Amino acid sequence: MQPLTIFGDSGSGNCLKVRWVAAHLGLPFTWREVDVPAGGTRTPEMLALNPPGRVPFVVLPGGEVLSESNAIIAYLAEGSALIPHAALARARMLQWMFWEQYSHEPAIAVRRYQLHYLRRDPADLDPRLEERGNAALALMEASLSKTSFFAGDTLSLADVALVAYTRMAHEGGFDLTSFPGVRDWISRVEDGLGIGPYQP
Amino acid sequence: MQPLTIFGDSGSGNCLKVRWVAAHLGLPFTWREVDVPAGGTRTPEMLALNPPGRVPFVVLPGGEVLSESNAIIAYLAEGSALIPHAALARARMLQWMFWEQYSHEPAIAVRRYQLHYLRRDPADLDPRLEERGNAALALMEASLSKTSFFAGDTLSLADVALVAYTRMAHEGGFDLTSFPGVRDWISRVEDGLGIGPYQP
Repeated sequence: MQPLTIFGDSGSGNCLKVRWVAAHLGLPFTWREVDVPAGGTRTPEMLALNPPGRVPFVVLPGGEVLSESNAIIAYLAEGSALIPHAALARARMLQWMFWEQYSHEPAIAVRRYQLHYLRRDPADLDPRLEERGNAALALMEASLSKTSFFAGDTLSLADVALVAYTRMAHEGGFDLTSFPGVRDWISRVEDGLGIGPYQP
Repeated sequence: MQPLTIFGDSGSGNCLKVRWVAAHLGLPFTWREVDVPAGGTRTPEMLALNPPGRVPFVVLPGGEVLSESNAIIAYLAEGSALIPHAALARARMLQWMFWEQYSHEPAIAVRRYQLHYLRRDPADLDPRLEERGNAALALMEASLSKTSFFAGDTLSLADVALVAYTRMAHEGGFDLTSFPGVRDWISRVEDGLGIGPYQP
């Protein structure tokens, strides 16, 4: 049987979530690098495997293909300490994971992509990206004034999902100096996952 | 102890998901109508309860507030037949729920909101909304050619999440006549949930 294969771009926070969780849990896996800016997700081979044409996706040992970063990490981490046992904490974890994909990633990761990869002029970007990204960071700062991680007082998949692009937010033109709680939390999550500070 | 209180706008698919699941499972609940287009989510009372300023959110019998439609329905349906028992089918369910919030709702629900509530001229809308909405419908049609529901051959929360705005897609200017598999699936989901066809 093939091991788990992760198809991802090492520059993408969504893809790194999957690699971090697999490595943290000690799951054997093969990483297949896919260059997103070069169109690597939309080759005939890739579209045949994964019709949405995005990464990450995984091919499981049984051959099934699973996509959506947060669904993949939920599957890989089932039964581990990264998913709280209590129903309400688990719901809180999912709440932040859905919020991440709807309210955080579409602002912070998208602005980073446009500035850092497409090298667009900040003046040409949709101003709502900056506004929504800062609103997302402010909501995170408020939540972290109550609990040290997003689903309570221990590291969970909510933190994995949220840290992915938050630690790269400066590449999207976001200034984390006004969010000290978020900065401290980034270090706690990096320590918990054993991934070290961000290095582009 | 208070029963479950659902804060929602009856015109919002995201809010209706929560009402359908609670009713389908026979959970006692109180519905508190919030008028989104009139700014009802951003009153001081609402923002104190739910800082993100969106609906739906619920107040649980113990007083905790939970937001994000798909996280709420996952919490309410835990242990029910709406969540598959097998790990891979459950992952597939979550995959489609995350996809719904990232790739479906931001096109189909957003275009509906602009046309149906804000009464904007179709010519003034971002053309990517139509393109992305049709791509989402095409991906659904392809998936429904393989299984009768999104997480396999039984109704799950993935279908609840996806049907919410798909059944209203015509109000967003989307034509479902080219997606016969999607239309048949809408009827199957409405039957399974016992909600009857869409009536604005």
